[in-house]
Amino acid sequence: MKNVVWHHATVTRQRRNELNNHKSVVLWFTGLSGSGKSTLAHAVEEELHQIGCRTIVLDGDNMRHGLCKDLDFSDESRKENIRRIGEVAKLFIESGVITLTAFISPFKEERDKVRKLLANQDLIEIYVKCPISVCEARDVKGMYKKAKANEIKNFTGISSPYEAPESPDLIVDTDQETLDESVDKVLGVLINRGIINNAN
Amino acid sequence: MKNVVWHHATVTRQRRNELNNHKSVVLWFTGLSGSGKSTLAHAVEEELHQIGCRTIVLDGDNMRHGLCKDLDFSDESRKENIRRIGEVAKLFIESGVITLTAFISPFKEERDKVRKLLANQDLIEIYVKCPISVCEARDVKGMYKKAKANEIKNFTGISSPYEAPESPDLIVDTDQETLDESVDKVLGVLINRGIINNAN
Repeated sequence: MKNVVWHHATVTRQRRNELNNHKSVVLWFTGLSGSGKSTLAHAVEEELHQIGCRTIVLDGDNMRHGLCKDLDFSDESRKENIRRIGEVAKLFIESGVITLTAFISPFKEERDKVRKLLANQDLIEIYVKCPISVCEARDVKGMYKKAKANEIKNFTGISSPYEAPESPDLIVDTDQETLDESVDKVLGVLINRGIINNAN
Repeated sequence: MKNVVWHHATVTRQRRNELNNHKSVVLWFTGLSGSGKSTLAHAVEEELHQIGCRTIVLDGDNMRHGLCKDLDFSDESRKENIRRIGEVAKLFIESGVITLTAFISPFKEERDKVRKLLANQDLIEIYVKCPISVCEARDVKGMYKKAKANEIKNFTGISSPYEAPESPDLIVDTDQETLDESVDKVLGVLINRGIINNAN
């Protein structure tokens, strides 16, 4: 280009936040299959959208069939899966989007890596707590039945461990709370942290 | 959760577009190292932000050190690199963000794969055209010098081919145009396609 001063990124996260009138953060939902992570994430997203926030939900539906379709369910692949989700979430919060991730993410070490990848205040870890007996009874996708019949290997809670968070930013008890109650708790954290405000 | 109808995504791309008052699309800039892809992408982003659009630039700076840091510059890795960028771009346009990608992306086959991955109207391929002699003379990062000294292998234009697009949606000739002229051409395409409008 003729007579050009070569320049680089001028649109910053800060400027995007001002345009959007809200900040960005990652809401990392972790819990057993059937605990209600995806349902809760989508219900929170609906509320956020209605008050004018930019959002995305990253879950098995859009990640396992896309960016991570080359990965299987071995421990190594599950680690790489979480690494990629963390990196994508980092890009999304840079772009000003409130990012809700709904993955079992059973290993503490991998969740800790994501926390290190992001600035500490950029990650809100939400433990979606539910007794495995209740998850099994729900068995929304018929996965527990298959896992118990040994048709699925490395199934969290049956043939692979789930390491519950030791100090999550929030616990929602989906066996005890209504969905509305859980949604309100999540929104409460976002208001307390100054991500969204009452004017939204 | 008690008495819950299990539900899934309700916030759609369409609803996000309405909230944002603009549509989302991928602007895929392809061209030699030093052709001006990144400079042009960031200049277009600045203009878009100033008229109230949500944007992200994906380039070597935020991809090669993050999501794609496990990849080298072999042909196979470069293909996987472009695949991942395509998948991430797909997530961003779903979230309502205008996504500008600035990668050499030298192989026609890989660019065609990205086009197939996205809906056809979701990708605007922009050929950032510049004679290699001019790119070499610019040599912003000192890369051509190293490539010619054989210190960098598989360097596009020197030791690895660049397959120019046969029918890009737009050609910008950075050797002939000013940066402002190139930016205006890109914005013109976005207006013609109805991605942004004069009210933005």
